Amino acid sequence: LSATPPAPGTQRPRGRTERVRQAVLAATRSELAGSGYAALTVDRVAEAAGVAKSTVYRRWRDTAGLLLELLDDLSTSEIPFADTGSVDEDARALAVGIAHLYSDHVAGTMVLALIAEAVHNATVADELRRFWAVRNDRAAEIVRAGVAAGQLPDGTDPVEVIRAIGAPIYYRLLVTREPVDRTVAERAADAALAAARAGTLDTSPRPEG
Amino acid sequence: LSATPPAPGTQRPRGRTERVRQAVLAATRSELAGSGYAALTVDRVAEAAGVAKSTVYRRWRDTAGLLLELLDDLSTSEIPFADTGSVDEDARALAVGIAHLYSDHVAGTMVLALIAEAVHNATVADELRRFWAVRNDRAAEIVRAGVAAGQLPDGTDPVEVIRAIGAPIYYRLLVTREPVDRTVAERAADAALAAARAGTLDTSPRPEG
Repeated sequence: LSATPPAPGTQRPRGRTERVRQAVLAATRSELAGSGYAALTVDRVAEAAGVAKSTVYRRWRDTAGLLLELLDDLSTSEIPFADTGSVDEDARALAVGIAHLYSDHVAGTMVLALIAEAVHNATVADELRRFWAVRNDRAAEIVRAGVAAGQLPDGTDPVEVIRAIGAPIYYRLLVTREPVDRTVAERAADAALAAARAGTLDTSPRPEG
Repeated sequence: LSATPPAPGTQRPRGRTERVRQAVLAATRSELAGSGYAALTVDRVAEAAGVAKSTVYRRWRDTAGLLLELLDDLSTSEIPFADTGSVDEDARALAVGIAHLYSDHVAGTMVLALIAEAVHNATVADELRRFWAVRNDRAAEIVRAGVAAGQLPDGTDPVEVIRAIGAPIYYRLLVTREPVDRTVAERAADAALAAARAGTLDTSPRPEG
């Protein structure tokens, strides 16, 4: 939207970097859809993307790095944060977005594979921890807006509400291996807000019970 | 405690089966503690337990089978269900028991390894689903008692409350890789019961939002 021409050496590299990223993302998705996680290798992705292997190794290091890039991309594109003016509606939209992401076989399998990888790989675990810290803090905007609008009590811990919305969905997907649908998602959102309204998700120090 | 002698062919085999099970469990724990999950093999466990490999393969099939046996044993021994007369106290005891199990490095790593394995192994996923269905239904007794005592509303879904107690703990362990302590556990229990008291964890059909 700016008429100012890009400074030399800024626009083109950024554009090329982004094109490489998109090609690698598309190749990673395609490889996962076609051959599954077990067959995913950096070499195959580089070849399918038409990008030099050295570039892919340098930027993403390994398949876990590719999956983290895809997770970041999916979270941003597939689970937009709603801003309806109602924290209840926004929370339901977030929960339904999470459930919907995992109803997509490729994306869901990919994120679960990354979580599984983190169990055995401390580097991936650290990267996941960082990813979720940023992601959940951004999602917490819907809770902060709800507190500001008087829809949730002062002192509500915004990130804790976000954890509470997602937790029952991931619990089913990973632990009990139970199906997740819109009803499950909406119930997760409703339960999280009910818990917040009862003052159980606040930021104050809690006495030992 | 019975003075009646065991019928021939019942006591000895049962005793021997249980001794084999205990030896294999101890060897599995020891191997996990000493060498970690990556080095766990049926052969090593059989050797450490002093049990024929064929017996271990026949009864547990693979390392996932060994981990499921250990999970079953740990759940029963490490997370006893409280019955204090207060569903709030019982729920907190359950949550603290879960958190405590994962603060034990070997046990925690083992269960997380099993959950990770299930992501790539449909047989293990099915076995985990069955395990949790039984386990959570048993844990739900504390919720049923709370409903019967008028401490939770009629129509509360007992298993859903159990899921809600565990979910924030597993979410931190597996997804966001955040630490879990007694405060986290007690908050999970308190939030689950608050959500139940608000009627969000009931068994009635829910309209689409």
